[in-house]
Amino acid sequence: MSNVTSDQPRLTAKGERTRGRIVEEAARLIYERGVAATTLDEIKAAAEVSGSQLYHYFPDKDELVRAVINYQANAIVTNQQHANLGTVKGLRAWRNTVIAASKSTEAKGGCPLGSLGGQLAESDPEARALIAAGFDLWSSTLSDGLQTLRAHGQLSSDINPDDLAVTILAALQGGLLLAQVQRSTRPFEIAVDTILALVAPKINV
Amino acid sequence: MSNVTSDQPRLTAKGERTRGRIVEEAARLIYERGVAATTLDEIKAAAEVSGSQLYHYFPDKDELVRAVINYQANAIVTNQQHANLGTVKGLRAWRNTVIAASKSTEAKGGCPLGSLGGQLAESDPEARALIAAGFDLWSSTLSDGLQTLRAHGQLSSDINPDDLAVTILAALQGGLLLAQVQRSTRPFEIAVDTILALVAPKINV
Repeated sequence: MSNVTSDQPRLTAKGERTRGRIVEEAARLIYERGVAATTLDEIKAAAEVSGSQLYHYFPDKDELVRAVINYQANAIVTNQQHANLGTVKGLRAWRNTVIAASKSTEAKGGCPLGSLGGQLAESDPEARALIAAGFDLWSSTLSDGLQTLRAHGQLSSDINPDDLAVTILAALQGGLLLAQVQRSTRPFEIAVDTILALVAPKINV
Repeated sequence: MSNVTSDQPRLTAKGERTRGRIVEEAARLIYERGVAATTLDEIKAAAEVSGSQLYHYFPDKDELVRAVINYQANAIVTNQQHANLGTVKGLRAWRNTVIAASKSTEAKGGCPLGSLGGQLAESDPEARALIAAGFDLWSSTLSDGLQTLRAHGQLSSDINPDDLAVTILAALQGGLLLAQVQRSTRPFEIAVDTILALVAPKINV
C-alpha cells in the first residue's frame, strides 16, 4: 500500500533495518499503551537507538505515528490477502485465525488499525486519512475474496460483495471494540459467527 | 443505569443544575475534540463556572470523564428504550434515526460512547468498566426489542436475540468508526442496511 514516507531519501540496508526496528517497537508500545501514553523516550529505549538516530528517521512523533499506521495496515492487508477468502475452507480458516488473534491478546488493544482510528480521527487529519486508506484496502481485499466466492456459486448473487465486505469489516471493528472494553473475546466471536451464520445458508460455512 | 457518582452528597436543585451543565459541556467538548485534547479550563469556560465550583463537583478530570461516560450511556439507552424495536415499524424508524444522527454530525466523533472506549480502554480501568456496563445495557435493551419481535413471529426462532443484539451493536460501532475515519456516513449506512437485509426475510423490514 502507499506509504507516507515513500519520498524519504533512500536508506542503506542497515538504515532500513534501524528504521524498521523503530517502527516495530513504536507499533508494539502504541498498541499496548495508546498513542498519547507512549513517549519518544520509551520508543528510543525499546528500539535501542539514540535520540539523534530516532530524529534522523522521524523528525517528530506525528511522523512516527503515521509510519506505525502504514505498518499496521500493511500487516493486516497482507494477512488478509493470504487468507484465501475465495473458498469456503479459506473463509472458515480466516474466521478461526481472527478469533485466535483476538484471544492471543485477551482482547486488549482492540484492532491494531481501528484503535488508532479511535484515538487519532479527531486530532490528526493526516493520520485519519491514512487509516481510512488502510480500511479501504482491507475492505476491498475482503470484497475480492467474496467476489470469488460468488463466482464459484458459494455466495448468493443478491448479496453485494462490496457491501458485505464493509459490513464484515464493521462487525470486526465493533466486535473488537466491545471485546476490548469488556476484556473478553466473546462479543467479537458472537459478531463474527452471527454474521457468518446469517450468510451461511448461501455459502455453507 | 448505575452512576459512579451516586454516593456523592445530596445536591440542591441549583447544585444539580450546575453539575449537569458541567457534565453536558464536558460531554460536548470531549465528543468534538477527544478526552486528551479537552482541558478543564475549556470545560470551565464552556459551563461558565469558576475553578472552585468545578472542583467542588469533580475533584479531577478522571471523575468528570466518568460522569461523561454515564451521561452518554444514559442518553443512548434512554433513546434506545423509546425506539420500540419490538415492532417492524419501530425497527425501521430506529434505522432511520441512527442514520440521521450520524449524518447530523457528518460522522465526526464516531459513537459518543464507543469513541470513549477507544480512547480510554487501555489507560483507565474504571472508565473501561463503566463503558462496558453501558454497552451491556445497550445490548440488552436491543435484545429486549428483538425478543418482542420474535414473540410476535417477526424474527425466526433460529436467531438468538442476544447474539443478534451484540452483532447489531458491533456493526453500529464498527460502522461509526469507519464513517468517522472516512468522513462519510456511507460505511455506517451500508453496515446497518446489510445486516437488516440479511435478517429481512425473517422480519420483513
